[in-house]
Amino acid sequence: MSTSEIPADLAAWCAANDARAQDELFDFLRIPSVSAKSEHQGDCLAAAQFVADALTRIGCTAELVATPGHPIVVGEWRKAGPDAPTLLIYGHYDVQPAEPLELWTSPAFEPTIRDGRIYARGSVDDKGQLYLHIKALEAHLAVRGTLPVNVIVVAEGEEEVGSVNLEHYLERDKARLACDAVVISDSTMFAPGIPSILSSLRGMAYVQIDVRGAQGDLHSGMYGGAVVNPAMALARILATMHDAEGRVAIPGFYDDVLPFPDAVREGMRALPFSDDGLMHEVGVTALGGEPGYTTLERLWTRPTCEVNGLLSGYTGEGAKTVLPAVSMAKVSFRLVRDQDPDTIVRLVAEHVARVAPAGVTATVTAMHGGRPWRADLKGPVIEAGKRALHAAFGREPVITGEGGSIPVVGDFERILGAPVLLMGFGLPGENAHAPDEWIGVENYQLGTRAAAALLDLYAQEFAAAPRP
Amino acid sequence: MSTSEIPADLAAWCAANDARAQDELFDFLRIPSVSAKSEHQGDCLAAAQFVADALTRIGCTAELVATPGHPIVVGEWRKAGPDAPTLLIYGHYDVQPAEPLELWTSPAFEPTIRDGRIYARGSVDDKGQLYLHIKALEAHLAVRGTLPVNVIVVAEGEEEVGSVNLEHYLERDKARLACDAVVISDSTMFAPGIPSILSSLRGMAYVQIDVRGAQGDLHSGMYGGAVVNPAMALARILATMHDAEGRVAIPGFYDDVLPFPDAVREGMRALPFSDDGLMHEVGVTALGGEPGYTTLERLWTRPTCEVNGLLSGYTGEGAKTVLPAVSMAKVSFRLVRDQDPDTIVRLVAEHVARVAPAGVTATVTAMHGGRPWRADLKGPVIEAGKRALHAAFGREPVITGEGGSIPVVGDFERILGAPVLLMGFGLPGENAHAPDEWIGVENYQLGTRAAAALLDLYAQEFAAAPRP
Repeated sequence: MSTSEIPADLAAWCAANDARAQDELFDFLRIPSVSAKSEHQGDCLAAAQFVADALTRIGCTAELVATPGHPIVVGEWRKAGPDAPTLLIYGHYDVQPAEPLELWTSPAFEPTIRDGRIYARGSVDDKGQLYLHIKALEAHLAVRGTLPVNVIVVAEGEEEVGSVNLEHYLERDKARLACDAVVISDSTMFAPGIPSILSSLRGMAYVQIDVRGAQGDLHSGMYGGAVVNPAMALARILATMHDAEGRVAIPGFYDDVLPFPDAVREGMRALPFSDDGLMHEVGVTALGGEPGYTTLERLWTRPTCEVNGLLSGYTGEGAKTVLPAVSMAKVSFRLVRDQDPDTIVRLVAEHVARVAPAGVTATVTAMHGGRPWRADLKGPVIEAGKRALHAAFGREPVITGEGGSIPVVGDFERILGAPVLLMGFGLPGENAHAPDEWIGVENYQLGTRAAAALLDLYAQEFAAAPRP
Repeated sequence: MSTSEIPADLAAWCAANDARAQDELFDFLRIPSVSAKSEHQGDCLAAAQFVADALTRIGCTAELVATPGHPIVVGEWRKAGPDAPTLLIYGHYDVQPAEPLELWTSPAFEPTIRDGRIYARGSVDDKGQLYLHIKALEAHLAVRGTLPVNVIVVAEGEEEVGSVNLEHYLERDKARLACDAVVISDSTMFAPGIPSILSSLRGMAYVQIDVRGAQGDLHSGMYGGAVVNPAMALARILATMHDAEGRVAIPGFYDDVLPFPDAVREGMRALPFSDDGLMHEVGVTALGGEPGYTTLERLWTRPTCEVNGLLSGYTGEGAKTVLPAVSMAKVSFRLVRDQDPDTIVRLVAEHVARVAPAGVTATVTAMHGGRPWRADLKGPVIEAGKRALHAAFGREPVITGEGGSIPVVGDFERILGAPVLLMGFGLPGENAHAPDEWIGVENYQLGTRAAAALLDLYAQEFAAAPRP
């Protein structure tokens, strides 16, 4: 990868328009488009309209596509010519609820700058990161009157409530949405000044395990020692899910895991990360996990089994001598490529059936699942992303992973058959779902420049790439 | 043990007075002396006064001893002469709350006879079983003008709230309460027509185990796989408490267990009990427990470890991907002679400290404890009890155990140094703490006769026993 710089014309336009781009973002942030709350339905519509207006004002077309929930904004600019690739930019205009309001230093929907940061709900997740792409489009259209690639913008309003209507829309309109690559800015850089390409997301298989014993709670004195205890049975079932060293011990669990390339693992090991820092952050004196992997590898590249909830019997103050009739655990498995959520649920159910003791009935109910995703880290959009980030931030980006799940990323790749570039401008501590959410002013500006450069570089890389 | 019959004079008096004895019990049952509820404080006092009046009316002295809670009734008759033994009769005049009231077929505090049973709150637990002893005293005093033994009656009003003031009273007044034996009728016969002596009660050590990980709940995607999960850690800790066969696996747990005599175990094995019946009763398809013991032995003669409650993380509907900061289990151990609750808590704490994984902190907090009790099943009061039950019911009593805990029994033996005879007249299904509590009319009457015969037989056995 060669060193590059932001094209001078785009850089000059950005410099001249940073203040206005920030003012416009502030207007966007003032709309309390909380998708989870029905009283904000009008605000969500207003935010969708804000995005559509921002697109049409710079020369794109835009429409609001109705869904059973909040509308999807679809913007288009398709005048780059038949040989140019099409890039789909995805983002979301909805935000998390702002509560607890009293913990915000400045009001959640009144954007405020302090210490070089824009504080507001949605500043980084995802209004700021969506809007910088629109400003990047504007830079091209204003300076050059054209874009080097065809562009589709998809901005949904339900990302914070599970993107419940997006997958269906992608399926329904996939001919119109056909594209050569997808870029999403809804993630976090590894550290300040270190541009990052997010290369993997873990998937999820979430189950509830219910263990039933007697038909009602029993007196633990009168029946204890002869009637099998569902709470103890559950503990014993859960304890079989890891071996003594920390590997998941469910037969077949790792069968479909595709190891990460050595180069990616080596890159992760080279990142400036310390276990001590994580221990200090969360307040523990030791970490754990699967042997043979660093902490970042455990978090990003390895599947897990976690108990998310436990409930049985008496849980109030003091002592009650009940032999519970039922017990329940919520258990989730983070998955990596190419584990399949349905297969994992089946393996878990078979395992639980095998280890559950006589005298109780254990059932495994699938709650929800999501496929893992991992970029192939090659091809024009990845190369263009690396160069654009290098140009904006003055250093090569690092490749990161993410332990969480964003099912929509896999949906884009699977339904549209296009590679996805995850190029985020958030920073650690950004409080994406907490009070005092922020995005760095500098990152908003550098993100705009990177997004602008990406369009040029993607056109170049696409043209230079061998045709299939 | 020789066959015997109820002395003819006492039998005749009982036959002539059964109706009145039942009417008086009805008056006693109409007093809603619910010790747990402050609005029934006056009713508890009225019930105490009812007992005192019943004692003075038949020729005993009686007083109400004040406590920080409900008063203790102490009745006395001490004219049997210097060579006669002193028998202490214990019972309680307080009752469980009657709620849920709508599940009673007839009102809880309006005694009603159906199918040969007296239905009312307190009928069997314990007003009926206390009052039959008073009627037995009356039989002697009415027919013969005297008792063959000195008698102390102790009727407390806080048994259903843990006998919170009785132990202190026994300590404080132990000179006055000095006696040669204690008889308590507050238990259940093994089956209809099978008189029973309850020979053992399990003790209790109840702990709460708290496991703490990170300082707050974490996102299971962002941290799962590297930060130790306190819910899974708790499951693994609990799973170490039994071995694969069902024995408690806490080192030292069985060290102080004094095995039951073979004769008692053989007697238990001969009782008409079927595992199928228990499985049907509680609604399970298999039983479990410690290998090498029958179900009754597991319930009555062996210590246990039971999880009474579990709580961690998200326990509502659906799925939440939280890595919990804390988890909690309530765990109780039923103990048998000569296990000591404090020692068991210490062993549990040491075990948990040993097996808890790095990265979490596990603490064990003692909640409450009670000593196990087991009768030696020899001596004058046991022999007299066997003969009295045989006389009343026409067959030898069986020796039973009880899996639950009644700490006061051990208190009497320990503080007063006197053996305790548990001679109960309840029956399985009596609903002692549930709606539609009942005592059999026949058992109330046969219990009165057994209690009357006991006085004669205890005097005989005491006189015949070798002096220490």
